Amino acid sequence: MTRQQLTERIRSAGSYLCVGLDTDRTKIPPHLLSFADPVFEFNRQIIDATKDHCVAYKINTAFYEAEGVKGWETMEKTVNYIPSTHFKIADAKRGDIGNTSSQYARAFFETLAFDAITVAPYMGEDSVRPFLEYKDKWTILLGLTSNPGSKDFELLPLSGPHGANVALEVGYLYGRVLTTASRWGTSENLMFVIGATQADSFVSIRRLTPDHFYLVPGVGAQGGSLKEISAKAMNKDVGLLVNASRAIIYASAKEDFAEAATRVAKDYHEEMEGYLK
Amino acid sequence: MTRQQLTERIRSAGSYLCVGLDTDRTKIPPHLLSFADPVFEFNRQIIDATKDHCVAYKINTAFYEAEGVKGWETMEKTVNYIPSTHFKIADAKRGDIGNTSSQYARAFFETLAFDAITVAPYMGEDSVRPFLEYKDKWTILLGLTSNPGSKDFELLPLSGPHGANVALEVGYLYGRVLTTASRWGTSENLMFVIGATQADSFVSIRRLTPDHFYLVPGVGAQGGSLKEISAKAMNKDVGLLVNASRAIIYASAKEDFAEAATRVAKDYHEEMEGYLK
Repeated sequence: MTRQQLTERIRSAGSYLCVGLDTDRTKIPPHLLSFADPVFEFNRQIIDATKDHCVAYKINTAFYEAEGVKGWETMEKTVNYIPSTHFKIADAKRGDIGNTSSQYARAFFETLAFDAITVAPYMGEDSVRPFLEYKDKWTILLGLTSNPGSKDFELLPLSGPHGANVALEVGYLYGRVLTTASRWGTSENLMFVIGATQADSFVSIRRLTPDHFYLVPGVGAQGGSLKEISAKAMNKDVGLLVNASRAIIYASAKEDFAEAATRVAKDYHEEMEGYLK
Repeated sequence: MTRQQLTERIRSAGSYLCVGLDTDRTKIPPHLLSFADPVFEFNRQIIDATKDHCVAYKINTAFYEAEGVKGWETMEKTVNYIPSTHFKIADAKRGDIGNTSSQYARAFFETLAFDAITVAPYMGEDSVRPFLEYKDKWTILLGLTSNPGSKDFELLPLSGPHGANVALEVGYLYGRVLTTASRWGTSENLMFVIGATQADSFVSIRRLTPDHFYLVPGVGAQGGSLKEISAKAMNKDVGLLVNASRAIIYASAKEDFAEAATRVAKDYHEEMEGYLK
């Protein structure tokens, strides 16, 4: 999916919601356990229930790998079930030396039909570049994440010309990741993960990377504010995919889980429609 | 496997060699393609051919994921085939927010029978801790990697008390990763990845983390020197697992690939026996 297609899709849907399929087998409603593949059945119903309110789905690979071979089958079935109108993200946090990253790119862009994959930046350019080489596919690099551990390394101040003034976000490690990686890819094939809980930094982050899309997790269960993020980080092409996982997929733990998911997704959708005007 | 068991195993084998199973289906000898699972057959013969010369195997998950569900099956069969005497590493470079890292830990420590997993540090403490919580399992955190991209972020100088003097390795990002993560785990459950191509830094790295084991890739195809690493980084419990992948498993592209793998592994083994004395 190209940037233009993604932006048009967001405009026509009136939504920049991404639904996160972090499906934990132990948390799905018990009545689904009689299905041959309970996690797929759950995902199928969640997708049907939310597709009119979102433009993207994010599959968190960890939850599928935890089930081994069967989980990998469920992941494959799930990504194939997502409508072709929707942007498909493998939330996989991969990244390794060049010849290995090439294999990960093949896994998620060829063997599986994802449009995008999340990638960890620690190992630098040759660990990221193989993902960027795919036409109309997206690399979503970790920038400033939503979790408490973001302070351990991402928020370390660097030395050097900017290091003296950490009010400039480029003086932090995550800022350097944003500016350095912006030279490897373009706003047509590279996005950044910016956690919704980091709202204080959104204005300066947008200054560093005015054109890029951000994948923003951390709304809902982790406490980020959709209103604040939208006000601070939307750009002329919207530039945001805001993800909610647990708040939507576990809105009810009972037989009405799909209806409950629709209700929560619809709430996000309506709120987003307001911000898009 | 405990640290004491690992050290005893290294002493009795006279080897700290890890064989990397980065098995690329397009690179295995053509006569194996008639097997139902050619990659597993290749791995089986490589394991049989090298197990007397090494103490560990490292499965590079990317090469298996690239084959989808079938690849995941091959990975499961391979890890189950590795003798229980040998240390089993999932080279997976995982790491995500806490509830997701818990799922990765389950995937590799419970669903699959690995002893250790490589983890990326970027997201900080809560992304690493779930792996450390498993008894007798190991987290192998990326420190200073062997690839060219290590200069992009790992080798960035930090500001602050140490930043002024980058001769102290703690002044670099990777040094901060080593010292910070050393407080999360112990030398009984935490190792670091230190690339063999970074031999100039091994003495200072050993000063920062005197007791930890290092997993050292980059010998062979990537050009690192076994002699130099062993001289600079061995500690009283050996403290090293040196990995070779392509140099061993692709020593011959023909029907004699297993014999060729034995020869190369035996060469490493004999060289290591010398350094262990």
